[in-house]
Amino acid sequence: MYPNWILRRAYLTPHRTGLTFENESWTFEQIKQISIKRTYQLAGLGINHRQRIAVLGPSKPSLIFIMYACMHLQCEMVMLNRKLSKSELQYQIEDSQVEMVLVEDEDAHLLPANTNHLLFSKILESAEEAVEISEEWPSNQTTTIMYTSGTTGFPKGVRQTVENHQSSAVSSVLNIGLSHDDVWLCAVPLFHISGFSILVRSLLYGNEVKLYQKFDQDGAVRDISEGSVTHMSVVAVILGRILQGLEEKQLKASPRFKVMLPGGGPVPVNYLERAHKLGLAVCQTYGMTETSSQTATLSNADALRKIGSVGKPLFFNQIKILDATSPRTEGEILIRGPHVTPGYIGRFAERSSTINGWLHTGDIGYFDEEGYLYVVDRRSDLIISGGENVYPAEVENVLMGHPAVREAGVCGIEHEVWGQVPVAFVVLKHDVTEEELIAFCKEKLAKYKIPKQFYVVQALPRNASNKLMRRKLKELMN
Amino acid sequence: MYPNWILRRAYLTPHRTGLTFENESWTFEQIKQISIKRTYQLAGLGINHRQRIAVLGPSKPSLIFIMYACMHLQCEMVMLNRKLSKSELQYQIEDSQVEMVLVEDEDAHLLPANTNHLLFSKILESAEEAVEISEEWPSNQTTTIMYTSGTTGFPKGVRQTVENHQSSAVSSVLNIGLSHDDVWLCAVPLFHISGFSILVRSLLYGNEVKLYQKFDQDGAVRDISEGSVTHMSVVAVILGRILQGLEEKQLKASPRFKVMLPGGGPVPVNYLERAHKLGLAVCQTYGMTETSSQTATLSNADALRKIGSVGKPLFFNQIKILDATSPRTEGEILIRGPHVTPGYIGRFAERSSTINGWLHTGDIGYFDEEGYLYVVDRRSDLIISGGENVYPAEVENVLMGHPAVREAGVCGIEHEVWGQVPVAFVVLKHDVTEEELIAFCKEKLAKYKIPKQFYVVQALPRNASNKLMRRKLKELMN
Repeated sequence: MYPNWILRRAYLTPHRTGLTFENESWTFEQIKQISIKRTYQLAGLGINHRQRIAVLGPSKPSLIFIMYACMHLQCEMVMLNRKLSKSELQYQIEDSQVEMVLVEDEDAHLLPANTNHLLFSKILESAEEAVEISEEWPSNQTTTIMYTSGTTGFPKGVRQTVENHQSSAVSSVLNIGLSHDDVWLCAVPLFHISGFSILVRSLLYGNEVKLYQKFDQDGAVRDISEGSVTHMSVVAVILGRILQGLEEKQLKASPRFKVMLPGGGPVPVNYLERAHKLGLAVCQTYGMTETSSQTATLSNADALRKIGSVGKPLFFNQIKILDATSPRTEGEILIRGPHVTPGYIGRFAERSSTINGWLHTGDIGYFDEEGYLYVVDRRSDLIISGGENVYPAEVENVLMGHPAVREAGVCGIEHEVWGQVPVAFVVLKHDVTEEELIAFCKEKLAKYKIPKQFYVVQALPRNASNKLMRRKLKELMN
Repeated sequence: MYPNWILRRAYLTPHRTGLTFENESWTFEQIKQISIKRTYQLAGLGINHRQRIAVLGPSKPSLIFIMYACMHLQCEMVMLNRKLSKSELQYQIEDSQVEMVLVEDEDAHLLPANTNHLLFSKILESAEEAVEISEEWPSNQTTTIMYTSGTTGFPKGVRQTVENHQSSAVSSVLNIGLSHDDVWLCAVPLFHISGFSILVRSLLYGNEVKLYQKFDQDGAVRDISEGSVTHMSVVAVILGRILQGLEEKQLKASPRFKVMLPGGGPVPVNYLERAHKLGLAVCQTYGMTETSSQTATLSNADALRKIGSVGKPLFFNQIKILDATSPRTEGEILIRGPHVTPGYIGRFAERSSTINGWLHTGDIGYFDEEGYLYVVDRRSDLIISGGENVYPAEVENVLMGHPAVREAGVCGIEHEVWGQVPVAFVVLKHDVTEEELIAFCKEKLAKYKIPKQFYVVQALPRNASNKLMRRKLKELMN
């Protein structure tokens, strides 16, 4: 059993600021009080302990208080991604069989028709029904469920337990340290593990979260140069904009700012060099939904010495390369530890997430002689576009659903701003315009997953067993 | 499974300094190399994996390397206290049935005759035999066994597992924070949990330990005022000497010095006030062998506001007062959490250490309205003298073994330097001198346990069921 993080934190440091948003702040005691009120209001609307509930809303305190209310009720929270299309959301809502979607009013239009939902405004007006709030949570209780795609193209709902989140936060603190006046700037989505893990850390560490509804270049540059924040999680594209902002304004990172943690794909070398000149410490990380955030991190001291590496595993984690017996041997990256998901829900509930405790990531990598990990190829031809994962198989499945398309292959190409973007190769049954394919995709896919270019080809590259060889797709562009 | 702390730390930060002693320093890589060499040397002398082994020696690096070698071998280490008498050591060696005592040469004379032992000098000369060193340790593996007395007067061997030590270190870091350049001054015995827990933290946090063989007032005052150390665990008597040293030399604590953690009994109010004036942050703690170090800590910010309190439980721990339903109700202090011992060895192996997971400490305390814990009475009339526990029953048992003594009662009286010292009340069968009783005790008891005064009385205060009422003993002094 572990303590209810929200109650425990409010007990330990009630008067410390836990959350800031625009011009408002909340102490941990206030966060507790509001989250308990929301718990009673949810109960008043018939939401019960341990139900599976989805949440959807922009990154605002209102969403955090509702999430914490769900945690008090020990509900399994399905974290819906605001960028998804209606049909993608529908898949997740059906697959997870949630009993209710709690949705911020302004996001209600994102939901598929006939979705069983409760608006935040309705929750806030609801009568309160006092229900029991447990002081303790079982370690294997599912706190969150986040969907991530895979080789099949069908997104899988990944369980993240109390222990997963907690051990991730604890491992991280042994790596990057902790001071009571640390402030995390959160401009990454709360429905992603990158954002949600900042909330978990805040509760465990007793630190303030400075929440942005959206990334704001001027605001972030000001906060970092003035030292009103100390930590920030970013993807490469956001890091690039911060560097540019600092450079244009001829500012440097405040000495109070401690570390920038980029995840979701590699950071360009010139970013690291520019960050170094600006006094901005950068610790590259490697992690995924299945590991509840970072599993390896490169220290800032090694940032320029070990370019391309994601560092070493965090203290309580283990990483190995499948079948590798010596350094620099490439192979599939396997991960084990208390932060690794116990498994999936819905249609993948029966599929084991690990083999002998090891998560098989599908990513290819190697260790160097000093034990630094390098990721050389992302799992399943994964495309990472602006920090969001795009699985080719998922996009191909959608394209092949169009009556004009016989076969489809999708791969990523480099892109100056987003790192990568998806492009598609199609074998047609009959003529179709690019505009029509795009319109078709828009109904079914989040915008960042829609191919930026379409190439009509006579055949797709396949191997002897007729398996699509996605790495050969690019050659068809010439 | 958890990582082998020594190997993992050397892998993560090989070049960081892990240990300093006098004019020598060792990096974590060097600590690993030496500890592996000692492991092979022990194996060469026939010490095997998972044996139960005792260690005895002064606080020097040589002892640490031998302890780490035992940890590589996953041995259960019985931590022998150098201050004990031969007969006390004999009891522990017999009760724990250790296969071997590893002893620093200069301490060999402390051992009872015919003790199966290996001198450190012999280990250092031994041929090496390469044996397997596991990269992982089971969480419930017993790392250390420390003896502590109790109501019966017979010391109990307390198991401290990998998980106990680890969760203690992790809980502590969430409370006091962490920076890579923290340096812990260790001048408390390594055979006590106060000292050993500093080693565990060093391995988990990657911090330097500055080891003192013995407390040295001038050295500590210099280290604290110059900021060459950042943390120190003390007992009240040592804190008093540091305050006095700083005051006499008109020095203040360096701003780099972070926190003084006193344990093993209350700190006098005037010490707290003086520390405050000297810029010395003090966080009073409450803990015991059975909780592998601190279980509650008072923050420095509350030091003067909550005088007499030991603060709040650490994040992952729970503390409650037996049968208390409201604040300020006194009762027995119960503790639960991953840091609580799973139980005892030897003659107490069958006795459960907990009831429904709760450790019944025997200490009496209460919580105030804000949830701060106050310890009002130590368990079983425990006397704490200079940070060492003295159990009256144990001393009484010894006294009653003397042919002239019919009955004996022991209690603590206040003492300016040591906080408390034991005094004895005896009912005699025939005349005996105080000198003879002291000589008799010296053979069987550590020096700090020997009564400082003896009172010959006609009868001891007993209750209706003839139980000795130790709290009434003091009245016999008049």
